[in-house]
Amino acid sequence: MKIRLATEADRDAIWEIFHAVVATGDTYAIDPNISRKKALQYWCGKKTDTYIAESGRRIVGTYILRPNQSGGGSHVANAGFMVSPGARGQGIGRAMGEHCLSEARRLGFRALQFNFVVSTNESAVRLWQQLGFKIVGTLPGAFRHPEKGYVNVHVMYCSLLS
Amino acid sequence: MKIRLATEADRDAIWEIFHAVVATGDTYAIDPNISRKKALQYWCGKKTDTYIAESGRRIVGTYILRPNQSGGGSHVANAGFMVSPGARGQGIGRAMGEHCLSEARRLGFRALQFNFVVSTNESAVRLWQQLGFKIVGTLPGAFRHPEKGYVNVHVMYCSLLS
Repeated sequence: MKIRLATEADRDAIWEIFHAVVATGDTYAIDPNISRKKALQYWCGKKTDTYIAESGRRIVGTYILRPNQSGGGSHVANAGFMVSPGARGQGIGRAMGEHCLSEARRLGFRALQFNFVVSTNESAVRLWQQLGFKIVGTLPGAFRHPEKGYVNVHVMYCSLLS
Repeated sequence: MKIRLATEADRDAIWEIFHAVVATGDTYAIDPNISRKKALQYWCGKKTDTYIAESGRRIVGTYILRPNQSGGGSHVANAGFMVSPGARGQGIGRAMGEHCLSEARRLGFRALQFNFVVSTNESAVRLWQQLGFKIVGTLPGAFRHPEKGYVNVHVMYCSLLS
């Protein structure tokens, strides 16, 4: 598997993954009916570095890395990760997470923050904890899960200072 | 003092307050050199309700209220507050905060979340606590204060369910 910056030519594959991931509405606070245009504005916008993971010639995952805030908050990065539903359980999320931490360090960020990790997405919470993230806060009932109703959301944070 | 929704005619006054507040760079994670156009896009954008507080015929403060997330996160509101530097210490922030909580309830939000309360902004932290907000998480060193260096940032949350 190779992880690299995305190009214009990857847009269709990114949209395919994005659409499949948000359609279930159980992990991202994004309208499941978001248009392709708005999705790509969000995932491939200005100030956002977009990466893809490819296995052979197939794109199996994508992640974004960007400043979480502007001005005096721009030294903390934010990231988002999506794995193609057909390619789960193969360590693609972990590989992208490790790549992302390395890229964030390389770009000079001092920390990486996730603003919205849905608590019922247990495999994600566990993965980020294994990669060094801590739950720094829990937002009670901040996500409306399509089956489980209102569930908690974690804010997770990983210092990049060694 | 009266608090009401902003109109097009309030744009100049809003920009004047916005510019004065972000110029010091010590409370908001916004580029102190942000342009008028981008500032108004941020403060008066789509999906954002913009309010102003006026004392006599002078606009002395402004706040925004909007969903903090989309999709399954849209039942939690986010807000931001700015008081004209020349009108501080007169309870304008508190009046806008109370108005905002009332509006958020009226609009059906289940909670109000602040994503980025700089810990050194002690009067703001105290005010929000007095209005019922809890610090649900603290982001270590997430804000670069122009004089104090890297300081902590609080995520604050107030349930609107009675």
